[in-house]
Amino acid sequence: MPLCDPDRLFPVEPKCRDLARALYQSVADAPIISPHGHCDPRWFAENERFPNPAELFVIPDHYVFRMLVSQGVPMADLGVPRVDGGAVEVDPREIWRRFAAGYHLFRGTPSAMWLDHSFEFVFGVSEVLGPENAEAIYDQVEAKLSSPEYRPRALFDQFNIELLATTEGALDDLRWHKQIADSGWTGRVVTTYRPDAVVDPEFEGFKDNVALFGDITGEDTQSWAGYLNAHRKRRAFFKKFGTTASDHGHLTARTENLSESDAEALFVKVLSGHFSPEEADAFRGQMLTEMAKMSLDDGLTLQIHAGSRRNHSARVFQQFGRDKGFDIPGQTDYVASLKPLLDVVGMEPNLTVILFTLDETVYSRELAPLAGAYPALKLGPPWWFFDSYEGIRRFREATTETCGFYNTAGFNDDTRAFCSIPARHDVSRRSDCAYLATLVATGRLREAEAFEVAHDLAYGLAKTAYNL
Amino acid sequence: MPLCDPDRLFPVEPKCRDLARALYQSVADAPIISPHGHCDPRWFAENERFPNPAELFVIPDHYVFRMLVSQGVPMADLGVPRVDGGAVEVDPREIWRRFAAGYHLFRGTPSAMWLDHSFEFVFGVSEVLGPENAEAIYDQVEAKLSSPEYRPRALFDQFNIELLATTEGALDDLRWHKQIADSGWTGRVVTTYRPDAVVDPEFEGFKDNVALFGDITGEDTQSWAGYLNAHRKRRAFFKKFGTTASDHGHLTARTENLSESDAEALFVKVLSGHFSPEEADAFRGQMLTEMAKMSLDDGLTLQIHAGSRRNHSARVFQQFGRDKGFDIPGQTDYVASLKPLLDVVGMEPNLTVILFTLDETVYSRELAPLAGAYPALKLGPPWWFFDSYEGIRRFREATTETCGFYNTAGFNDDTRAFCSIPARHDVSRRSDCAYLATLVATGRLREAEAFEVAHDLAYGLAKTAYNL
Amino acid sequence: MPLCDPDRLFPVEPKCRDLARALYQSVADAPIISPHGHCDPRWFAENERFPNPAELFVIPDHYVFRMLVSQGVPMADLGVPRVDGGAVEVDPREIWRRFAAGYHLFRGTPSAMWLDHSFEFVFGVSEVLGPENAEAIYDQVEAKLSSPEYRPRALFDQFNIELLATTEGALDDLRWHKQIADSGWTGRVVTTYRPDAVVDPEFEGFKDNVALFGDITGEDTQSWAGYLNAHRKRRAFFKKFGTTASDHGHLTARTENLSESDAEALFVKVLSGHFSPEEADAFRGQMLTEMAKMSLDDGLTLQIHAGSRRNHSARVFQQFGRDKGFDIPGQTDYVASLKPLLDVVGMEPNLTVILFTLDETVYSRELAPLAGAYPALKLGPPWWFFDSYEGIRRFREATTETCGFYNTAGFNDDTRAFCSIPARHDVSRRSDCAYLATLVATGRLREAEAFEVAHDLAYGLAKTAYNL
Repeated sequence: MPLCDPDRLFPVEPKCRDLARALYQSVADAPIISPHGHCDPRWFAENERFPNPAELFVIPDHYVFRMLVSQGVPMADLGVPRVDGGAVEVDPREIWRRFAAGYHLFRGTPSAMWLDHSFEFVFGVSEVLGPENAEAIYDQVEAKLSSPEYRPRALFDQFNIELLATTEGALDDLRWHKQIADSGWTGRVVTTYRPDAVVDPEFEGFKDNVALFGDITGEDTQSWAGYLNAHRKRRAFFKKFGTTASDHGHLTARTENLSESDAEALFVKVLSGHFSPEEADAFRGQMLTEMAKMSLDDGLTLQIHAGSRRNHSARVFQQFGRDKGFDIPGQTDYVASLKPLLDVVGMEPNLTVILFTLDETVYSRELAPLAGAYPALKLGPPWWFFDSYEGIRRFREATTETCGFYNTAGFNDDTRAFCSIPARHDVSRRSDCAYLATLVATGRLREAEAFEVAHDLAYGLAKTAYNL
Repeated sequence: MPLCDPDRLFPVEPKCRDLARALYQSVADAPIISPHGHCDPRWFAENERFPNPAELFVIPDHYVFRMLVSQGVPMADLGVPRVDGGAVEVDPREIWRRFAAGYHLFRGTPSAMWLDHSFEFVFGVSEVLGPENAEAIYDQVEAKLSSPEYRPRALFDQFNIELLATTEGALDDLRWHKQIADSGWTGRVVTTYRPDAVVDPEFEGFKDNVALFGDITGEDTQSWAGYLNAHRKRRAFFKKFGTTASDHGHLTARTENLSESDAEALFVKVLSGHFSPEEADAFRGQMLTEMAKMSLDDGLTLQIHAGSRRNHSARVFQQFGRDKGFDIPGQTDYVASLKPLLDVVGMEPNLTVILFTLDETVYSRELAPLAGAYPALKLGPPWWFFDSYEGIRRFREATTETCGFYNTAGFNDDTRAFCSIPARHDVSRRSDCAYLATLVATGRLREAEAFEVAHDLAYGLAKTAYNL
Repeated sequence: MPLCDPDRLFPVEPKCRDLARALYQSVADAPIISPHGHCDPRWFAENERFPNPAELFVIPDHYVFRMLVSQGVPMADLGVPRVDGGAVEVDPREIWRRFAAGYHLFRGTPSAMWLDHSFEFVFGVSEVLGPENAEAIYDQVEAKLSSPEYRPRALFDQFNIELLATTEGALDDLRWHKQIADSGWTGRVVTTYRPDAVVDPEFEGFKDNVALFGDITGEDTQSWAGYLNAHRKRRAFFKKFGTTASDHGHLTARTENLSESDAEALFVKVLSGHFSPEEADAFRGQMLTEMAKMSLDDGLTLQIHAGSRRNHSARVFQQFGRDKGFDIPGQTDYVASLKPLLDVVGMEPNLTVILFTLDETVYSRELAPLAGAYPALKLGPPWWFFDSYEGIRRFREATTETCGFYNTAGFNDDTRAFCSIPARHDVSRRSDCAYLATLVATGRLREAEAFEVAHDLAYGLAKTAYNL
């Protein structure tokens, strides 16, 4: 019996299910476009084997370990590295056993679906992971990982990835991308310009970062004009490594449209280190507008990932640092927040600003009405907690009626879990096809249209939105 | 093959679908009650032909042109008139071609369903509009428009409209309604009292409007007492033309219950022109309570349409003015906002206050609990972006369990797109019958009850809520 | 024909329905665990007969009478006691007739489902209540009530209740629980520690309550240390009567983590009677954290029921007092509000804090991400307006993908309507089984897993979460 139901995520009514299956089959083999994610480019540069099953599936994946933690497993027992020097479990088999012991916790979650998909289709596992078979499955995965077919580049090809975008900071030297480019390997791995460390005055080491930014670019980043020029140069540098987009992970979606002199004064203030949280927020908001204006010149798509309250647990942050599953969404306004930016660039037909949210209440109330009016706006796919069957269903049901399909931007996997990429795109394609089949079955879309739209959602829209 | 699936919007499971169809057939031919909308009464007064297909379907309909604009078509290219004197496309055929070229953008939207319904059932079109058949369909629609059967009054009869309410400002002389009344035509077209221009201190020309309001009514509208009297007189004047309701389109649902002297002082202040946004908002809030008190005397139903952030794009507003598809909803509180009004009139069994929202999050959290307790409150149907299959489904699923069916107010089409009226009522009836059939199929309602409720939702509740 | 469809609430697609039915049958006879509710312990202490049908079904049940009130029936006409000395209807038959005349108003509501279930399965009624059969059904119910099989303890056994928790204030002497314990009856009725009257500075008589709290416990409750000791002693006293949980009904989910000296100063201030609403709120917030710290010692589960705007109608509150159906939910933040408490106790694996909400928007945005990370947090079942088929469906769909099943706490009926307890647990079990069957049918859960989870949701999780 397969781990994954061949008809998973399709509607239950037989005729509607048949149509969903047919739609899915028409896109199941389309190449994967992964225009936003967090894979490590070093994997593809060096093409070393992945160390062991625990390092591949548990230790780096906060989707996975936070669920075990939520049920009382200490984070250190799962091998998650500490920033405070404390000890953590180092035996990958022991970590794997703890993972297997809690595998039932994932029932009904997308994590279970992604993991089972990886186990079955990447590693040939045919039983549900649990305490009894933990060792055997560990051995099976480990054996595969040691073979050449499971090196990163081989998996990249096996996964049928046409393009994979990683994300690097503005100060990154892109050495791994350079090494990939120099290697002659034909896999298309591009980077994304993510300047948070030099844009967010509250980022650790902001002042030093801006100084280093000047060194790297040869611009006087202590002046507003020089600082902006440094961004322009750095964006151009990133474009040499295939970048077609920038990305911005802000607490809010706030934007500003300050006068030249006010912006300059604010820059001086935040650089001085003596600024209020409000001023820091205003500066981040001004920088979104500056980035959008640069995009008018250099064509980069602008991504806004807003609304995550990072590092909610003080204790976890202190012991384990960032990105440990304790980032919690909060209410996020887009209507007032985006108005300054939209008054500058919103009506530009040749700019693409992609909006992401962790607050589903804005889909129908704010995002779809905005994207259904402003030419510059597109809606990104359901993000993070909402990259799931129900998340995708709610997104489509709440947005399509107002902004249609063509103001959305296709799928992102947004992951650092490499083996989950095919699984995530598969869930997305199945969920979208289930939605389309339901539209056809209820007379809201014609069957021939559904086949066209299915392909656009799985492949075409991502290429358009990211200028690929 | 018909443009519209005869079983559209019904549940997919065959038995449930059969019941939905039977429920729908029992109400499909019920006359249309349209108690709130924005048709032009002049159409029915003069009964001239509609100028051309583009003027009928594209130029005045912000649902339609904003979608094309969102994908990069300049608004001027669609013939939308400018307020800044700039040139716009004047060739209706060229506008129509652009509309046809973008018709795929409407896939999955209620606009597509309304347009296809109008094309098929009003104009006999049998193909999906597109670039290839744009000219032919233009000619077909144009030919029909030139025949007497397509004059406004003939269509009114063909659409089986029992009553149509238009909306006029407090300063309107209701000349077209008078002309309709004098014409001997038996179609029932009534007006609605919409006093925003003399109630909202931030409305263009508020001070002059209030002065004119005095001239019209013979009251001293520079005094609070006289100003209120002017409203009373004007409401009485509107009632002569069939008005049974007032309507109020405010940014928020704020209400106030000021003392006589505080209200008077606030009135003097806003009339002086020297007031804060907060004072303007407080005045609008006080006027909702004043209107409710007048309703206790004259029986008008009070409609509150709250929560639209109007004219979001500064550039579009400057070039094209109001109502151009750039009104964006925002978060709207009802619990605290309505308390002052409800403490005055909420427990009155003979008053009807109908609440509308563009913030779906309040359905289950605020509106249904309020309407399920206060005798004076009823819930209006899903409005604007939510006048759709999914919008209606979410509304029913989120409100019925708390306030039932009988605290809701039936359907409004709320449209200025005359030919879409039958389509919109059809979508509403089908969506409600789909919901009712699902309740029966899941043992939450008995079949005989469902037939009663279906008729109430399609016809009876609107008549009750609007005292028709 | 039965009042209740045997397949109610199951999915409509036949195969999916069959599986839901099978899942339901596997849990339908599981004993009822009712770990949170508001039944009167006196019923079980004295075991007197219930006075009459109106007293049983209408007068004390704000779910029921508010719906009739919302359609214009005066509350006094339904026998609801007044606090202002005004007259109310005293004839139970007349009240029952009014109830029957408005019974159609409950169509599509959970109240109808609970009432019909009680009528059919507890009282053997076989017709839908209405004006024609009101007298006959009154007589039938009254006849049953007068028989020994309808005494509280007999019904308790008939309902297959394994445990019922009532809720008492910190000042309660628990006399009825003592009488139950002394009676030798084997029914397990426990209490819950609900200290609002001595924790909320805005509670009527707070200062006197705290003084009395000192008298009862022999602690100096005028000092912060003594006041906290009084809680410790009282919690220990409640534990003698089976208490395993405390409960806190606050306006917001605010928590605080003040220093010892700041907390003491705030206590002195609120006890003085001279405090701001902000200070009252801060004190309530601090007390949640104090209660959580006590729970680390004594093992009580901490329940937070946040977000009800109590007594919305000034007139109803003045005439009829609290709990009269005019409590309206409002927006409630959990992310920022709970952080102080979570920074103290959130990572404790042996503490259970159960969160309830009346704001469904937080399910996917805040509650599931929090519960899916912090070991101390569990999600309570859908509460109040959301204790319904749709409410449960939305809860599961919005939370499972992020926090799974095992971070939820099973079902609560939270009712003072004793006869509705089997009905409410039945709705919960059916709704959960419908959800599980849908997951299986769409390949998101395996069938064997679904049977395990069904039992956990119906029985096991409640026992775990409440340490039963």
